Amino acid sequence: MTGSRRADGREPDQLRPVRITPGFVDTAPGAVLMEMGRTRVMCTAALEERVPPFLTGRGKGWLTAEYGMLPGSSPQRVTREASTGRPNSRSREIQRLIGRSLRATVDLSVLGERTVYVDCDVLQADGGTRTAAITGAFVALRLAVRRWQADGVLAADPVTTQVAAVSAGIVGGSPMLDLCYVEDASADTDLNAVMTAAGEIIEVQATAEGTPLTRRECADLIELAAAGIERLIRAQSRALKRP
Amino acid sequence: MTGSRRADGREPDQLRPVRITPGFVDTAPGAVLMEMGRTRVMCTAALEERVPPFLTGRGKGWLTAEYGMLPGSSPQRVTREASTGRPNSRSREIQRLIGRSLRATVDLSVLGERTVYVDCDVLQADGGTRTAAITGAFVALRLAVRRWQADGVLAADPVTTQVAAVSAGIVGGSPMLDLCYVEDASADTDLNAVMTAAGEIIEVQATAEGTPLTRRECADLIELAAAGIERLIRAQSRALKRP
Amino acid sequence: MTGSRRADGREPDQLRPVRITPGFVDTAPGAVLMEMGRTRVMCTAALEERVPPFLTGRGKGWLTAEYGMLPGSSPQRVTREASTGRPNSRSREIQRLIGRSLRATVDLSVLGERTVYVDCDVLQADGGTRTAAITGAFVALRLAVRRWQADGVLAADPVTTQVAAVSAGIVGGSPMLDLCYVEDASADTDLNAVMTAAGEIIEVQATAEGTPLTRRECADLIELAAAGIERLIRAQSRALKRP
Amino acid sequence: MTGSRRADGREPDQLRPVRITPGFVDTAPGAVLMEMGRTRVMCTAALEERVPPFLTGRGKGWLTAEYGMLPGSSPQRVTREASTGRPNSRSREIQRLIGRSLRATVDLSVLGERTVYVDCDVLQADGGTRTAAITGAFVALRLAVRRWQADGVLAADPVTTQVAAVSAGIVGGSPMLDLCYVEDASADTDLNAVMTAAGEIIEVQATAEGTPLTRRECADLIELAAAGIERLIRAQSRALKRP
Amino acid sequence: MTGSRRADGREPDQLRPVRITPGFVDTAPGAVLMEMGRTRVMCTAALEERVPPFLTGRGKGWLTAEYGMLPGSSPQRVTREASTGRPNSRSREIQRLIGRSLRATVDLSVLGERTVYVDCDVLQADGGTRTAAITGAFVALRLAVRRWQADGVLAADPVTTQVAAVSAGIVGGSPMLDLCYVEDASADTDLNAVMTAAGEIIEVQATAEGTPLTRRECADLIELAAAGIERLIRAQSRALKRP
Amino acid sequence: MTGSRRADGREPDQLRPVRITPGFVDTAPGAVLMEMGRTRVMCTAALEERVPPFLTGRGKGWLTAEYGMLPGSSPQRVTREASTGRPNSRSREIQRLIGRSLRATVDLSVLGERTVYVDCDVLQADGGTRTAAITGAFVALRLAVRRWQADGVLAADPVTTQVAAVSAGIVGGSPMLDLCYVEDASADTDLNAVMTAAGEIIEVQATAEGTPLTRRECADLIELAAAGIERLIRAQSRALKRP
Repeated sequence: MTGSRRADGREPDQLRPVRITPGFVDTAPGAVLMEMGRTRVMCTAALEERVPPFLTGRGKGWLTAEYGMLPGSSPQRVTREASTGRPNSRSREIQRLIGRSLRATVDLSVLGERTVYVDCDVLQADGGTRTAAITGAFVALRLAVRRWQADGVLAADPVTTQVAAVSAGIVGGSPMLDLCYVEDASADTDLNAVMTAAGEIIEVQATAEGTPLTRRECADLIELAAAGIERLIRAQSRALKRP
Repeated sequence: MTGSRRADGREPDQLRPVRITPGFVDTAPGAVLMEMGRTRVMCTAALEERVPPFLTGRGKGWLTAEYGMLPGSSPQRVTREASTGRPNSRSREIQRLIGRSLRATVDLSVLGERTVYVDCDVLQADGGTRTAAITGAFVALRLAVRRWQADGVLAADPVTTQVAAVSAGIVGGSPMLDLCYVEDASADTDLNAVMTAAGEIIEVQATAEGTPLTRRECADLIELAAAGIERLIRAQSRALKRP
Repeated sequence: MTGSRRADGREPDQLRPVRITPGFVDTAPGAVLMEMGRTRVMCTAALEERVPPFLTGRGKGWLTAEYGMLPGSSPQRVTREASTGRPNSRSREIQRLIGRSLRATVDLSVLGERTVYVDCDVLQADGGTRTAAITGAFVALRLAVRRWQADGVLAADPVTTQVAAVSAGIVGGSPMLDLCYVEDASADTDLNAVMTAAGEIIEVQATAEGTPLTRRECADLIELAAAGIERLIRAQSRALKRP
Repeated sequence: MTGSRRADGREPDQLRPVRITPGFVDTAPGAVLMEMGRTRVMCTAALEERVPPFLTGRGKGWLTAEYGMLPGSSPQRVTREASTGRPNSRSREIQRLIGRSLRATVDLSVLGERTVYVDCDVLQADGGTRTAAITGAFVALRLAVRRWQADGVLAADPVTTQVAAVSAGIVGGSPMLDLCYVEDASADTDLNAVMTAAGEIIEVQATAEGTPLTRRECADLIELAAAGIERLIRAQSRALKRP
Repeated sequence: MTGSRRADGREPDQLRPVRITPGFVDTAPGAVLMEMGRTRVMCTAALEERVPPFLTGRGKGWLTAEYGMLPGSSPQRVTREASTGRPNSRSREIQRLIGRSLRATVDLSVLGERTVYVDCDVLQADGGTRTAAITGAFVALRLAVRRWQADGVLAADPVTTQVAAVSAGIVGGSPMLDLCYVEDASADTDLNAVMTAAGEIIEVQATAEGTPLTRRECADLIELAAAGIERLIRAQSRALKRP
Repeated sequence: MTGSRRADGREPDQLRPVRITPGFVDTAPGAVLMEMGRTRVMCTAALEERVPPFLTGRGKGWLTAEYGMLPGSSPQRVTREASTGRPNSRSREIQRLIGRSLRATVDLSVLGERTVYVDCDVLQADGGTRTAAITGAFVALRLAVRRWQADGVLAADPVTTQVAAVSAGIVGGSPMLDLCYVEDASADTDLNAVMTAAGEIIEVQATAEGTPLTRRECADLIELAAAGIERLIRAQSRALKRP
């Protein structure tokens, strides 16, 4: 899987430099700056003592995610969603993806009637913000859970599974891992994968922007993503071991 | 792939009865009632003589899709989106999926600076409304294009590819095609696939609601969907041949 | 009252063909497809176990109506209200009219602290959608009440009065019953009437779009409407007798 | 038509004291304080040099009306519509009625591509605010037109017809003119009528809140309203003659 | 501080004619028409039997203010906030200022779990509407409290301090008190001050629109405002003594 | 002005540690991380090739500011404004303050018909976010202007004045500079000042939260702020000299 030259000199199956900075802010119980190359996302986790109406009285909790891009995070200024008075549908779709992915890591009955809020705010965007958000948000959640257990807020650990996410795509006819913005803009197909530490799938979304994708190519992209996710899982584990 | 008994007696790889009624209303240039078992979606296509701001002056067109559920389409009344004053994020996500899928079938430069609106309104919901919407919307679009060509509005045929969509999932450990609502509600994994007449992928979305999905199972579900889509493509072609 | 030739060959005092299809969908307890010529409205009724704040604790119920037009229901595509983020004032006015008309048929104290939702969604519009909605909604409500009584949800029958509605207008100087779209667009006056089986008025709205209306003409239009409503009441009764 | 005693000692066919104060504010070209007993509405008219999109390039103008109640205008504080972020449907319905009524008085082609805004703001509400708004708005419009003609903004007078409006209703079984709030709250039927100086109908809306209304009673209420409107037309004319 | 000639002939340190009309409407327990020259604001106060969520169960009350301009209150028609579907940020900022100023006059624990609503609606604007609103709102609040005490709704008087407000500015290089619209539009600096009967500051806001303001000039403007507020406090007291 | 002990050991007239990091992100032409102790604000500036409607065709530009707090920036999670569907009035008020302050530094006619957007997003909040935003935003603007001049977008330098901002307050009876959150929460008075490099006032806002403020105390707080701003101006200049 070597051969085609990438804009930044990476091999086709190589991730961008991964940096995970726990404790990036001290105001949230779990807070991480997640960086994949130039893409930087601040991920935080917080707890509220109530659940959405559809869960009231069921003795279990909920986890919800929100995602946004700061106006300065992109060379073309991103219109502030609060100023339009209505949410942007791309953001909505991404926050639903992050929410589903993180809920897959948690036993909601251990939370009690509480809601975990996971917030992912993009400080600088260079492709792959939704997958960086998921990978970073898992670490923020883990850190927050530690704090809630230390403070006696949670009696047990609700996290059951470790997840990470990455993108892959077909660019110029070749499969490539972890697309940066210029690659993503010229890709024929864009795939986002969320998997567990065991390499099992939580979510896969493949979209052919130009030429349709054969079933063979789809399978190859999923394998490429699985290899990248394995490395991200290790990076998460290292970040969580720091004092 | 036989064996496990389904609620409605179908085989695991069997579609629900498919009915496509062209000309369901006469107010829109393309109009179809798409039925997959008890799921019924009215799909219409219309043309507006303008494009979104980001395309102005580029000499090409756009296609956008909207999706909604009528309040009476579900046993639990669906809150009317107009009455909440803000769109529902599930609907938004579905209309983005339908839009991407239908745009993949069209050469936008043939449209000129015009926008095709595809509307999918669910009259009765029993699972699989988004995939039924895509399958029906393709037929509505095709019918509308015929009319626009006959009326001299379009000089050439912008449709380049035929697409259809179906769901599949793992229910009680077994892969099953075209889930109805009760199956969907108990599925471990839900997969939606959009493919061309050649069996190539336009979009695949797989979500593990409970147990994660192995990569092997994911590949099996994609094959199951491909077989179903092949049959839907034939049903579309038959409907389009009617006078 | 014969003489002037109508676009579709009807007599001035003749209704368009009336078709009422009970059970049009099986997801709502009461569901009807109401057709007046080419105008087609899906009407459904549902129950929620709560009342608006202003009625809480008073031991009585409420009935509210919502109305919408599907985007494909008109030759000029109807902008989806959910996509504008705010309700359309014509729709609001119509749903207030439908709500008042249906509330006049019900003894709200028999409902208990529950709200009946009546939804009227126009599939195909050719004039007179608001009056078709009222006539169809009464049947949907009646069917739903039967189901709620059969299921033991309601102990008694809250419906006290049968109502139907029709339009009339002055077109080319002549009074005409049940205007279709082309007639309505050229009418000098548009009158909508809602009456009981006894021919008494629940609501009358007369609007002179062009030339003002004499009091004599107004009285004539009300009589014309009364005759049409009498026939609609019979059509409702026949539909409700089907098994 | 005498006999039944009214709360404020009026005869059944008697209007409340009518006061029309031209020039109530000096910021708008036409401005009136319209009072019917304790009901007080400030009516103003203004001109904008553009028309709604549906009229652009047609060489004719438009007239639109807006209506609101100040929070302190009612013993139970009225929630400010701006603070709810969405307009109230009762207000919407009323402003559509005012707009239709005033458009009936104007030849829109004389306006050129301009929009007249008529604003009716209720300072104190005691029943009949929508009809008082129409009666006052006509005077505000007339005053504004005078100013626009004097300033050379309009070359000709667009006002073709004089209109006024009043309510009537059946209270305790008796027809009564110009209901105040306590009468309105206990009325079986509420009728609002807008008529020309010639006694012809622009708009009639009759709503049976409790007992349905016979066609005979409806005709009687319309006559009662016609007599009241005749007197209001004279009051408008007197106010317009003041220097 | 005499010398420079003002548009309306006033001395630099002179207020416009002040008129305070208690009982301007009889629908609200406290109601005032506050006039500063041509600026006219209707101020009302009302009570609701609940507090915002953040105060629930704390045994104390709240006071909130709302501010709006009627469309006809300005020579350039003011867009109705309800019709835009979102509040205007200038209005929001002003209502926060009025709310803070009036809360400074009240011991919220005396109110019990109730909210005072203060509404300020501008009928005619000629500069200084926010300060006129505060001065008038204090009187409306005082009148409402008297009524609530008389009716036994409040056991004690919650008002602890008397406040009034005025603007000042540097116009053509000279400090001037109580700017009217034409002065305000050409001012280099605009200062709004809210003070107590003892001449102490509740709120001061100084904004240099053109040339920055020296600290000396700022101090001079505050003194000028203090002298004006002293006279407004006396006008309030006189209005409150009327029967 | 020494004596009273502050929570973090500072002298009453001492600023928190000031850190200004130019180039914090590389996606915006001007980008700064502004830190005052634990308060951290990301400030960026961008240019759009259009002006608001009220300036079209006047040959001059505009500058607008937006402000937001990330959900994780505060120990009590901040509700995301995009998710409420309407902007928060505190944010609106702050962005109006930032906009006025930055416009005072710019000759808008040098911009041509362009709009500068200044975005201030709080990553971590510990009091004084609005003043830190102004101080940081000035540096971001200066950096962006340098880039626009280097790229030939702007022919001349529109920045005419250097501004910075700080808070001060009376805490426990003593005047203190640059309040952190715990000081701000217990302050009797809160003052925000924006001044030029020459120590002249652009904006001063003083609010007595508890006890009213004497005019003497107000003058003292303004002097305290002026001394702090002088030091912030020097810190800005140092940051702008870095390569």
